[in-house]
Amino acid sequence: MFSPEVYRQRRKALASTLSGGIAVFPGNRESPMNYPANAYPFRQDSSFLYYFGIQQPDLAGIIDIDEGTETIFGNEPGMHEIIWIGSGRSLKETCGDAGIDTLKPSDSFQETLKGSLKGGRKVHLLPPYREEHRALFAALSDAALELTVSQELIRAVAAQRSVKQAEEIEEQEKALGITRHMHLAAMKTARPGLFEYEVFAAVQNEAAAAGGRLGFPAICTVKGQTLHNLSYNNQLKAGDLLILDGGGETAERYTGDITRVTPVGGTFSEKQKEIYQIVLKGKEEATALIKPGIPYRDVHLHAAKVMAEGLKSAGLMKGNTDDAVEQGAHALFFPHGFGHLLGLDVHDMESLGEDFVGYDTEIERDSQFGLAYLRLGRRLKENWVVTAEPGIYFIPELIDQWQAKNHLADFIHYEKLDEYRSFGGIRLEDNILVTAEGYRVLGEPIPITISEVEAAAST
Amino acid sequence: MFSPEVYRQRRKALASTLSGGIAVFPGNRESPMNYPANAYPFRQDSSFLYYFGIQQPDLAGIIDIDEGTETIFGNEPGMHEIIWIGSGRSLKETCGDAGIDTLKPSDSFQETLKGSLKGGRKVHLLPPYREEHRALFAALSDAALELTVSQELIRAVAAQRSVKQAEEIEEQEKALGITRHMHLAAMKTARPGLFEYEVFAAVQNEAAAAGGRLGFPAICTVKGQTLHNLSYNNQLKAGDLLILDGGGETAERYTGDITRVTPVGGTFSEKQKEIYQIVLKGKEEATALIKPGIPYRDVHLHAAKVMAEGLKSAGLMKGNTDDAVEQGAHALFFPHGFGHLLGLDVHDMESLGEDFVGYDTEIERDSQFGLAYLRLGRRLKENWVVTAEPGIYFIPELIDQWQAKNHLADFIHYEKLDEYRSFGGIRLEDNILVTAEGYRVLGEPIPITISEVEAAAST
Repeated sequence: MFSPEVYRQRRKALASTLSGGIAVFPGNRESPMNYPANAYPFRQDSSFLYYFGIQQPDLAGIIDIDEGTETIFGNEPGMHEIIWIGSGRSLKETCGDAGIDTLKPSDSFQETLKGSLKGGRKVHLLPPYREEHRALFAALSDAALELTVSQELIRAVAAQRSVKQAEEIEEQEKALGITRHMHLAAMKTARPGLFEYEVFAAVQNEAAAAGGRLGFPAICTVKGQTLHNLSYNNQLKAGDLLILDGGGETAERYTGDITRVTPVGGTFSEKQKEIYQIVLKGKEEATALIKPGIPYRDVHLHAAKVMAEGLKSAGLMKGNTDDAVEQGAHALFFPHGFGHLLGLDVHDMESLGEDFVGYDTEIERDSQFGLAYLRLGRRLKENWVVTAEPGIYFIPELIDQWQAKNHLADFIHYEKLDEYRSFGGIRLEDNILVTAEGYRVLGEPIPITISEVEAAAST
Repeated sequence: MFSPEVYRQRRKALASTLSGGIAVFPGNRESPMNYPANAYPFRQDSSFLYYFGIQQPDLAGIIDIDEGTETIFGNEPGMHEIIWIGSGRSLKETCGDAGIDTLKPSDSFQETLKGSLKGGRKVHLLPPYREEHRALFAALSDAALELTVSQELIRAVAAQRSVKQAEEIEEQEKALGITRHMHLAAMKTARPGLFEYEVFAAVQNEAAAAGGRLGFPAICTVKGQTLHNLSYNNQLKAGDLLILDGGGETAERYTGDITRVTPVGGTFSEKQKEIYQIVLKGKEEATALIKPGIPYRDVHLHAAKVMAEGLKSAGLMKGNTDDAVEQGAHALFFPHGFGHLLGLDVHDMESLGEDFVGYDTEIERDSQFGLAYLRLGRRLKENWVVTAEPGIYFIPELIDQWQAKNHLADFIHYEKLDEYRSFGGIRLEDNILVTAEGYRVLGEPIPITISEVEAAAST
């Protein structure tokens, strides 16, 4: 945990932006795998973590704006918990670590909410994203008193959590230190004959040996054309491209989110090099635009144009680049967004609703295929942390679908695509801090040029 | 997956024992960590897995006893799923792997249930253990039609899943092969100066590199007196005992469940040896009783007596052993049960209710401290797989609680206990198949005698 003052200040800052009522943060419970006592490793809700910092299940926090009070609801461990889970410190002491003086028993939490609702007070809650939270909403709602999500709280939390504090940026760098070792391990491990799960094991081991875990289930596959492929059962063969999109999480639950691509066998083919350079150029030239005030949608579209130009040189696209990108032809190859906010969540605050977090009244989400998947479109601000992650993929089913309709055929050399059906995909991703002047790539450098990656793969 | 015939036979066997109606198996959904799209690694419900074998979220299966039909409810992937999650095979084909011909869309599942309820048919459902299942019960229940858990189905499923088939025993052996490597890794890794998470990393790596994962969050700690300690933050020092209670899971989701204790620094002290031998003797002599027909409660109590005898020799207990165990004095040191069923769940079928699975009308759960935690008390049957896992622990808070009341002081040398307050705990666990004649310890041997463990720790 950070110092109690960090959490106190955050709560104070939040309270000062809300019009009144109570802001309610239900912490997470354990998530059962196959029965209640066999739970997944506990993950606290990120907003609870941000304002209260305590990584224990079955807690809730309330900030009473009108009264100026702050309360945690939870129970002290009894002998059963001491025998089975361990004594550790009292919950009262742990609350002190979060700068909270008032601890009330769990069963008074719902009563407090009901009382506030009945008293006609504003009850601010964030959107539920786990069934346990939905159950809370259901339990508290009846015909007379409907509990609804508070857009005022969503906007206030999103505004606050988007701007990273110094101690958060430090955590982000720490996470990237672990993440760097994960990627070096993958580059070193990816050898013909191994299975993806063996590379994944080496990657996960770096996070575990650093005392943490993965911030999200890593993508570690030679079938990179599937954007979110989470199976690890393919065997690596020489000439494959192994894509690793993974990040290590710190004890405070900040995560890295880095993607690199390793040639299985140690060297890229000429064909692979050509596409790789296009993605790298797209990433670098679009990243160079990052500074406060620029819409991230523009950064995304710039990457799309740079890569469309490259794909024209490679003989895969044709026609006017601006027109191609305006009509979304590049999305056949680059069907996802350039990046998203990063922090306590790998897609930071996605649970609050992407349209609140990544868009605003000035820049609304587009409905065009590809651009619609851009998670962050609005103007950047200083001290936001974002990912920069363009990619080029050859997705046979998507190619077939478009080609059957001759979709955007003015911009795509469909006849050339046959040679690329088994190419897979390439994505390159870094984590970027928006600074007052521009940007800074976070973390120590991780091999990314072709020669750097080939060197790392052969050590 | 096993062959389609395996699943067909299992469903047929189940249907033949039910009086009528429909047996409903809602599969699991993804479990969100910090937002819906960032989910924990998917774990299918074990009963769904047993009867339908498919490891995908958002499915449900219905066996219609009256009509003799079998249906899976789920949706084929669209282009969005192909781009993001991968194409793979059609769901229709996958259903074929489970011997199921009828696939219906997901949204007809609740309608089918409602129709059956309204038609006055018996709707058999197992107890919900995830909020998503509770939500299903809630959605289907109203004042007129209350959906309830089917005790008939619980008993039928428990009876069937308890008796392991040949292919299940083979999976169990496979799981123990991975588990063995995990324990050898821990013995080899546990060195003074390392942190528990570094040992845990080496353990987890063995499961991951074999293409699997842990069947349950491993206990890997030098604070073994906390029975279910899941934090890994202590530093190992010479003289500590590192307890590893862990198991690898196969692709079919059978898990090993083995506990071993390694002396940090490579050799046990004389004091540690004495307690270790008592636990080992308790395990061996009680295990020797295992055969069809013996109540597992008797096996548990025999282990308690053997260990109470040993604790008497060590000067920690006193008085008549039978009386001591009858009054539960041993539970100060051995507060948990001797073992449980093992299979698709590490506590097999715990979600169905331990009292249905581990007890019956002949042998009911005891309320005495310690014995109350015994998960399996009933008479054993051929082809059950059980764990044998006695332990001795020195839990300072529990000692203080008992000593303050002078509880069972006729049997406990409280004055001697002071020397043991920082001892920690020792548990030794194997997985046992009940055979027609007696029992067989499953898996290749894992070092367990003092000399074997010391040898493994020094390699």
